[in-house]
Amino acid sequence: MSTVTIHPSVDAGVSKGDPGFAGGTLRCHCKGDQVEVQVQSNVAHNHACGCTKCWKPGGAAFSVVGVVPRDKLEVTKHAEKLQVVDSNAAIRRHACKECGTHMYGRIENRDHPFHGLDFIHVELSPESGWEEPRFAAFVSSIIEGGGARPEQMEGVRARLNELGLTPYDSLNPPLMDAISTHIAKRNGILQ
Amino acid sequence: MSTVTIHPSVDAGVSKGDPGFAGGTLRCHCKGDQVEVQVQSNVAHNHACGCTKCWKPGGAAFSVVGVVPRDKLEVTKHAEKLQVVDSNAAIRRHACKECGTHMYGRIENRDHPFHGLDFIHVELSPESGWEEPRFAAFVSSIIEGGGARPEQMEGVRARLNELGLTPYDSLNPPLMDAISTHIAKRNGILQ
Repeated sequence: MSTVTIHPSVDAGVSKGDPGFAGGTLRCHCKGDQVEVQVQSNVAHNHACGCTKCWKPGGAAFSVVGVVPRDKLEVTKHAEKLQVVDSNAAIRRHACKECGTHMYGRIENRDHPFHGLDFIHVELSPESGWEEPRFAAFVSSIIEGGGARPEQMEGVRARLNELGLTPYDSLNPPLMDAISTHIAKRNGILQ
Repeated sequence: MSTVTIHPSVDAGVSKGDPGFAGGTLRCHCKGDQVEVQVQSNVAHNHACGCTKCWKPGGAAFSVVGVVPRDKLEVTKHAEKLQVVDSNAAIRRHACKECGTHMYGRIENRDHPFHGLDFIHVELSPESGWEEPRFAAFVSSIIEGGGARPEQMEGVRARLNELGLTPYDSLNPPLMDAISTHIAKRNGILQ
């Protein structure tokens, strides 16, 4: 068993979401004047992510992140506190300047396979019912992020499997196939 | 069952290599004046690869590729027929100008995690005993290469599993962990 903390929202086990859940409100970690983001949709493709760019709560090796249609997401309070973490990254992560919490990530490149989807962390919402995380992506990358030492990785992958979060060192096969299909269409390999 | 041809060297089943095998000679596909490469080592990390850059025999969706220490590989005949396919790629693939066969791939960037290893296709050798391929990498990428349509991918992954070539959409976990460890050391995250 791994001594690495995966993420507080799954460490005690993954709770199933409610298929009829229709959205909620995300708030940053500031004590006052919180940035507020309203989401009028359930989350899709929710997963644990080990990449070095996704926002993680303190002590966690993984982020938990999923997507919603960008037209279902609106910043409703304190938009002035948001700034883009890295404007060169494919996903422009909009974070609170004060507490550092990533409120949503948006892709502006229309050629990107995931253009039209915003990335959110549902743990920022007090509501329950969001679709549960169903896999773990970019698992090997937690070594780069300082989340685990190489010799802990076997235990980390075993723990992820135990939680029902099948570990991948990329995204999962449906999403990887979707990316490749998008590129194949763009290049004329597929109609 | 997939109707996609994985690779001629595994389509009838994967044959185990000989642990004591010590190397062989690779030759290109020209009828005469073949480029010849002598390898004084068994291959390691041999695998099926679906990436769009690795050389594949006609009709195959995958390449079969592995590594040898670069100081164990020597071009022994017709080096003048070799040219680098893409000098901007991390792996500089040296191919025969006439038949197009990739004879070896070499990494010149000393900061690359796999610097010091050359990439070879053991099917170019008449000898048997090379370590068998043990996993499949970059499987989703065969869609981009025109090797499979998206709806065939479930069958492709099932066939790879049947052959004992566990499919990944990246490299396998040990290699992905090795890459991440290399980066972590370079960045000072690990000693």
